[in-house]
Amino acid sequence: MGTAVDFYFDFSSPYSYFASTRIESLAKELGREVNWHPILLGPMFKLMGSAPLMQVPLKGAYAEKDFARTAQLFNIPFELPKPFPIASVAAARASLYLLQHRPDTARLLIHRLFKAYYVDGLDISQQDKVLAVAADIGLDGNQLAAVLADDQLKAALKDAVAAALARGVFGAPFIIIDDEPFWGFDRFEHIRMWAALK
Amino acid sequence: MGTAVDFYFDFSSPYSYFASTRIESLAKELGREVNWHPILLGPMFKLMGSAPLMQVPLKGAYAEKDFARTAQLFNIPFELPKPFPIASVAAARASLYLLQHRPDTARLLIHRLFKAYYVDGLDISQQDKVLAVAADIGLDGNQLAAVLADDQLKAALKDAVAAALARGVFGAPFIIIDDEPFWGFDRFEHIRMWAALK
Repeated sequence: MGTAVDFYFDFSSPYSYFASTRIESLAKELGREVNWHPILLGPMFKLMGSAPLMQVPLKGAYAEKDFARTAQLFNIPFELPKPFPIASVAAARASLYLLQHRPDTARLLIHRLFKAYYVDGLDISQQDKVLAVAADIGLDGNQLAAVLADDQLKAALKDAVAAALARGVFGAPFIIIDDEPFWGFDRFEHIRMWAALK
Repeated sequence: MGTAVDFYFDFSSPYSYFASTRIESLAKELGREVNWHPILLGPMFKLMGSAPLMQVPLKGAYAEKDFARTAQLFNIPFELPKPFPIASVAAARASLYLLQHRPDTARLLIHRLFKAYYVDGLDISQQDKVLAVAADIGLDGNQLAAVLADDQLKAALKDAVAAALARGVFGAPFIIIDDEPFWGFDRFEHIRMWAALK
């Protein structure tokens, strides 16, 4: 088995959601595990001087169409949530904490958070919504609420974003395999072609 | 046979070049013709407040890697030219003129200009290089030089860019089929899937 596939995602990115539904089967095809990396696009866009996608003239309208069409073409349940985009920091922190302490539960939480936002329309920018999703899979809401307020966890997410940037990650979803970088759900087929050439 | 596929491209865009090598076979699969539309990304980026790709931190370096890898994965001859990117206005004007007057020759010229830049490393931002490529396929260089200086042709290209923007075209390559917009060489597979659903 090769090294794990590094999968960087932001809960506020529909293409990250689409990718999250397929990354495990893709990694399995390649005989690899998945390392999940919650990140925040906000600080990255700031560094790059980029505007958030939906605010770019023409591109925003196209993106909205492309989200829906991509979901349809790949049979992924999806409805563009309101509000969109959102600050995904609470969801990212909760995921990071669990990845550090209970990796198997973390994967389940990540899938449930994506579903909560893109299928059930739950505004997961609200911490109480994140806690409700966590409670649904048997996690202790009170304990997680305390964890989310912890400065060490806040710093850990900042460090994770900085570490991602240092590896050249500037968007989401972003996949790195054996140091080879791939940006976007639309690179999944390229990953397969690239792996076949190796 | 359905309506033609509208194919918008900028000679300065490697993904436009990649797409130009496959758009005719894709259209044929769909039982359609191709309408070629040379455009200029410069005025579009200005309107959208976007920086040119290669100037965006991290994204520029990734793009350079992705150009080379995409070319390799799809078996397309390619070497990132120097200088890159370039002002592609002379090439775009020559293509537009021929599309208006000799469409079959125009297609050949477009393919040759892409090849001149991305395979042979010819700097087609220089008008004399564009004329040399045109002469290679039997066009009259002196006549074309006169045409390229014509205010009517300059205005026609500006109008073409404005018309593209009015249809929501904000990047290249950009494909519109039956009013359905697709942005990027990486949407070719989506086009096939979308057409299969219709």
